[in-house]
Amino acid sequence: RSVEMAKLTQLIDNEVFRAYATYTVIILLKMMLMSLITAYFRITRKAFVNPEDTAVFGKGESAKKNLRTDPDVERVRRGHLNDLENIVPFLGIGLLYALSGPELSTALLHFRIFAGARIVHTFAYLIPLPQPSRGLSWAVGYAVTILMAYKVLKTALYL
Amino acid sequence: RSVEMAKLTQLIDNEVFRAYATYTVIILLKMMLMSLITAYFRITRKAFVNPEDTAVFGKGESAKKNLRTDPDVERVRRGHLNDLENIVPFLGIGLLYALSGPELSTALLHFRIFAGARIVHTFAYLIPLPQPSRGLSWAVGYAVTILMAYKVLKTALYL
Amino acid sequence: RSVEMAKLTQLIDNEVFRAYATYTVIILLKMMLMSLITAYFRITRKAFVNPEDTAVFGKGESAKKNLRTDPDVERVRRGHLNDLENIVPFLGIGLLYALSGPELSTALLHFRIFAGARIVHTFAYLIPLPQPSRGLSWAVGYAVTILMAYKVLKTALYL
Repeated sequence: RSVEMAKLTQLIDNEVFRAYATYTVIILLKMMLMSLITAYFRITRKAFVNPEDTAVFGKGESAKKNLRTDPDVERVRRGHLNDLENIVPFLGIGLLYALSGPELSTALLHFRIFAGARIVHTFAYLIPLPQPSRGLSWAVGYAVTILMAYKVLKTALYL
Repeated sequence: RSVEMAKLTQLIDNEVFRAYATYTVIILLKMMLMSLITAYFRITRKAFVNPEDTAVFGKGESAKKNLRTDPDVERVRRGHLNDLENIVPFLGIGLLYALSGPELSTALLHFRIFAGARIVHTFAYLIPLPQPSRGLSWAVGYAVTILMAYKVLKTALYL
Repeated sequence: RSVEMAKLTQLIDNEVFRAYATYTVIILLKMMLMSLITAYFRITRKAFVNPEDTAVFGKGESAKKNLRTDPDVERVRRGHLNDLENIVPFLGIGLLYALSGPELSTALLHFRIFAGARIVHTFAYLIPLPQPSRGLSWAVGYAVTILMAYKVLKTALYL
């Protein structure tokens, strides 16, 4: 078993793989933060979707009127869904890209730009910044993912 | 090719990685079950969202009135989306954690608690149980994921 | 470092893993296409959800009336969410399956059927084709994922 452990440790010791691990964790933690922001707005705006949740923050009629949608809550939820739609492809394509043997400096560039673009996207969505801030930050992350996908297919294509 | 296969087999023979594989498959199957539960409620409650679906379960006017939302269907869908929001981070962070060389007993503890928390969360959402059942089970899975993320960053950080 | 790189390259040189990489990238690119189709319908149907987006395509009153939902936009979004719900399990279970040492021909069959089913599902949803086209294509992808999950648990089970 210690021999296998050593092999696994070698994977995590590889610098490209460590860079992938670092930026993946950062961007997934950022995505998870959206849950906390949603909860914060639901509680401060008193805008809940489940009857059992309203009971915690009020009773009777006042509880019922908290079963409603709120523009700020819906905005955070759209940002969260947009994260899922874009970070899931990065998770899969980025892993395969990291295993396809890219140059460390090239890989770092891709990971840093993707993570940066998604962080800018979140600020652009939540503040919100005027367009095309959100559109551009989305497009940058999208383009980086497609570049990585191209590298994976060029290296590994097996149909 | 047989040499490479042997190497891959070693990865799946590693006990921590096998534990990750086991709990990931369990929790993804649980998430997939949400699709079946949604379909079950859509059919029994006659609450569809696509016109082409209502045609299967009725004709003319009776088909049209089945184009509606139903509280039970919406509840399952919210549980499904919450799964996506929390299981996607586990998928990525858990894999990197499994490759970061944790103690087998520690890794098992993290995987078991996460899987258990998500199963409790599903029951708490669908029955539904009074709060804070759902909130607590969500928070436990969230906290375990953050602990694993910390271990990955401590082992692999490469910015 | 060159030794570790060699090991990583071996992983991507394994034919089953290359097949997984290829079909995963294809199906993730297909999912990413849904974002572009959504944007296309939002712009051509003038149906936006964010006030800052309407400002780009009109001013004053004409901008406000573009804050609305459109059946075509909603249809693409449902297809996108269905992709997330089904491709995320494939991402995790497929990776573990590829590492569980399946026969190359068997693995290729699973990956090809899954990718084909999801592409048919997209056409069935967007055209839309009459049921049970969409239902069947969904079920085929679902069944293939469960077969792969069974293989992973048979090979790696460690509770």
